[in-house]
Amino acid sequence: MIKIGVVDTTFSRIDMAKYAIEVIEQELPEAVIIRYTVPGIKDIPVAAKKLLDEGCEAVITLGWVGGKQVDKYSYLAMSIGLIMLQILTGKHVIDVTVHEDEADDPEKLLEIARNRARKHAYNLVKLVKYGGTALTQYAGKGLRQGYPDVGPLIEG
Amino acid sequence: MIKIGVVDTTFSRIDMAKYAIEVIEQELPEAVIIRYTVPGIKDIPVAAKKLLDEGCEAVITLGWVGGKQVDKYSYLAMSIGLIMLQILTGKHVIDVTVHEDEADDPEKLLEIARNRARKHAYNLVKLVKYGGTALTQYAGKGLRQGYPDVGPLIEG
Amino acid sequence: MIKIGVVDTTFSRIDMAKYAIEVIEQELPEAVIIRYTVPGIKDIPVAAKKLLDEGCEAVITLGWVGGKQVDKYSYLAMSIGLIMLQILTGKHVIDVTVHEDEADDPEKLLEIARNRARKHAYNLVKLVKYGGTALTQYAGKGLRQGYPDVGPLIEG
Amino acid sequence: MIKIGVVDTTFSRIDMAKYAIEVIEQELPEAVIIRYTVPGIKDIPVAAKKLLDEGCEAVITLGWVGGKQVDKYSYLAMSIGLIMLQILTGKHVIDVTVHEDEADDPEKLLEIARNRARKHAYNLVKLVKYGGTALTQYAGKGLRQGYPDVGPLIEG
Amino acid sequence: MIKIGVVDTTFSRIDMAKYAIEVIEQELPEAVIIRYTVPGIKDIPVAAKKLLDEGCEAVITLGWVGGKQVDKYSYLAMSIGLIMLQILTGKHVIDVTVHEDEADDPEKLLEIARNRARKHAYNLVKLVKYGGTALTQYAGKGLRQGYPDVGPLIEG
Repeated sequence: MIKIGVVDTTFSRIDMAKYAIEVIEQELPEAVIIRYTVPGIKDIPVAAKKLLDEGCEAVITLGWVGGKQVDKYSYLAMSIGLIMLQILTGKHVIDVTVHEDEADDPEKLLEIARNRARKHAYNLVKLVKYGGTALTQYAGKGLRQGYPDVGPLIEG
Repeated sequence: MIKIGVVDTTFSRIDMAKYAIEVIEQELPEAVIIRYTVPGIKDIPVAAKKLLDEGCEAVITLGWVGGKQVDKYSYLAMSIGLIMLQILTGKHVIDVTVHEDEADDPEKLLEIARNRARKHAYNLVKLVKYGGTALTQYAGKGLRQGYPDVGPLIEG
Repeated sequence: MIKIGVVDTTFSRIDMAKYAIEVIEQELPEAVIIRYTVPGIKDIPVAAKKLLDEGCEAVITLGWVGGKQVDKYSYLAMSIGLIMLQILTGKHVIDVTVHEDEADDPEKLLEIARNRARKHAYNLVKLVKYGGTALTQYAGKGLRQGYPDVGPLIEG
Repeated sequence: MIKIGVVDTTFSRIDMAKYAIEVIEQELPEAVIIRYTVPGIKDIPVAAKKLLDEGCEAVITLGWVGGKQVDKYSYLAMSIGLIMLQILTGKHVIDVTVHEDEADDPEKLLEIARNRARKHAYNLVKLVKYGGTALTQYAGKGLRQGYPDVGPLIEG
Repeated sequence: MIKIGVVDTTFSRIDMAKYAIEVIEQELPEAVIIRYTVPGIKDIPVAAKKLLDEGCEAVITLGWVGGKQVDKYSYLAMSIGLIMLQILTGKHVIDVTVHEDEADDPEKLLEIARNRARKHAYNLVKLVKYGGTALTQYAGKGLRQGYPDVGPLIEG
C-alpha cells in the first residue's frame, strides 16, 4: 500500500486539493490519500512532516500567498522549510503555490490554480511511480504549471 | 492531561495572549496552559521549543512586528525558526503575528489582533482535538484571521 | 554556580558589553560571566555556541550593524543563526542589535545602545532567575529597548 | 566505480544537462552518471539528496529561474537548501543556475546556459578527481561560467 | 600540530588567499595550512566543512560577490550556510567577503580585499591562539576590515 499526503489551507480561496486528489486517484488508484488542512502556508511544512511520519511516500502541498511583501517573506520561509524537510527525509514534497497577485481576474486565478494543482499532481505521481528519470524526457522543455507550457527556448 | 503552550512578548502593544487563552480555556477546558513571555519576536522560537520540551502538545505564539524593513527581516528569521522547530518536533506552533503597519488606527489594530488571536486559538484547538482533517471542511474557503473571511474566489 | 555568556564585537563603535555586564553583575551577583569578543556579527552565533558548550545558562549578544543593504542581509543571516542555535540548545540567546542608521547623532546612538544593552540584560536575568513567567506581567505592554517604552496601544 | 549525479528540471527552457553530461563522460569516462529530473528549482535539493544517498560522489544541478521577484525568493530558498545539504553530507553539489532575465535574446541565453553547464561540469570533475587544490591555480583569476572569464582585477 | 583551513574561489578577481596565508604563516608558523579552492561563493560552505572534517581548528574563507541582486541573495545563502556550519561544529569560520560594487576603482578594490584578508587572518590567529578574550581589548572600538578603523563612536 502506498500513501500520498495532501496538505492544503483554509486561507486559500480555491479548493486546490480537489484537483490534485482527482489526478492522484485516477493515476495512482492503489494509493491511500491522507489529507491535512492547516490555516495558512506557514503551517504547511509541519503538516507535511506529520504525513511523512505517518508513512507517506510523498506529499503535495497547496498554498495560497497574499500580495503584500510580508506575504512573500512568509512564502520564502515556507519554501526554506519545505526544502529542509525534504533534505532531512529524502522524500518529495511537491509544492503548489498560487500567488494572489498572479492575476486580477478570479476566473484567471482559478484557471491557474486548477492547472497548477493538476499538473504538479501528475508530476508527483510520475516521480513516485517511475522515479527520477520519469520526467527526463521533458527536461529543458519549458513545462509550466498554472500556465501553458512555454516550450524549449530554441527548437532542435 | 494535555498541555498547550502560549508564547507572547513584552514588545507587543496588545495583550494578545489573553484572547488566545480565553478561547483555549473555553474550548479545551481540560488543557493545562503554560505561558512563556519573552522580550520580542526573535525570542519566540526558543520559548516555543522550551514549552514543547516540557510536554506541550502544541504552542500558539503571539508576535508583534514593527514597520521598518529590519523588523520584517526579524519576522522572516522568526518564521524560518518556527517552521524549523515544527519540522524538528512534528508539533504545531501556530503563529499569530500582527504587523504594526497593518493599520494606523489603534482601535483597528486592536480589532485585528484580538480577532487573529482568537481565530488562530480556535484553529489550534481543532487541530489538537481532531487532527489534520478538522479544518478540511474549510479548505479553500478563504478564511482570514484578523479580518473578515474573504470566502472562496468563485462560489460553487 | 551559574554561568552567563556575553558576546560582543570589535566592529561595534560602542562597548555595549560593559553596560550589559554591569546589570548582570548587579542583578545576578552569583553569576560567572564569560565574555567572548569576535570581529563582527556573522561571528556571533558560533561564539554563543561555544559559550553554551562551556555551560552557560544563557547568553547575551551585542551586535552592531552597518547601514548598507548587505549589512542587513548579514543581520538576517545572524538572526537566523541565533534562532537556530536556540532551537538546537533550548537556551536563551538574547540578541541586542544596534543598527548604525538608527540615528545620525552619535550621542543618540550611544543612548540607544546603552539603554538597549541594559534593558535586555535585565530581561536575561529575569528569564534566567524566574523562568518564562517572569516577564508575563509586562506582556503586551509595549516595552522597548533602546527607546522609551511606548506602552500598550489602548489603555485599560 | 564512481557515481556522479545530475539533477535538472522540466521548467528549464534549455536541456542544460546534456552539456554537463557530455563533459563528464569525456573527462571522467569511468563515472556512472545518474540523472534525476524534477519539475522546478525547489525540487532540486531533494533530488540531489536522493542521488547522494545512492552513493554519488558529487552532484551537478541545473536550474532555471524566472524573472519575477518570487522566482528570486525561490532561488534563495533553493540555494540555502543546497548549501545545507552539502554541509550535512560533506559532498559537493555544484549549482548551475540560469536566470531567464540574464538576456533577452534566446541565442544569448542558450550560449550562457551551455557555457555555464560545461564549465561547471569541468569544475566538478576537477574537484572529484584531484580534490580541493585542483582549482587553486585559478584562484582569484576571475573565472566566469556563462560568460567569458573577466580575469584578475589587476595583472601581476 | 594545528591545521588552519583557507577556502577561496576562482570567481574572485583578486588572490585574497595569498594575503591571508602570509599572515597565518607569519603569526602562526607552527600551523599547517590546508587550502581548498572552489568555483564560487555558494561552494564555500562545503569546502569549509570538508576542511573542518580534516581536522582544521578554524577556517578563513575568501569570497567575491557580484553587484547584482541575485548575487546578494547568493551572499545571503552562503552567510546562512557558514553560520549554520559554525553552529554545528563549534569552530570559527571567519568570512572575508568583498563585494565587487564596494568600489569602482580596481586599485581601491585591491586595497579593500588585501586589507580585509590580512586583518581577518589576524583575527583568526588571535582567536585560535588565545581564545574568546583575545579581541576583548578591541570590543566596541569600531575596527574595520577593508577600510581604516573608524574608532569608537564617542571617545572616553
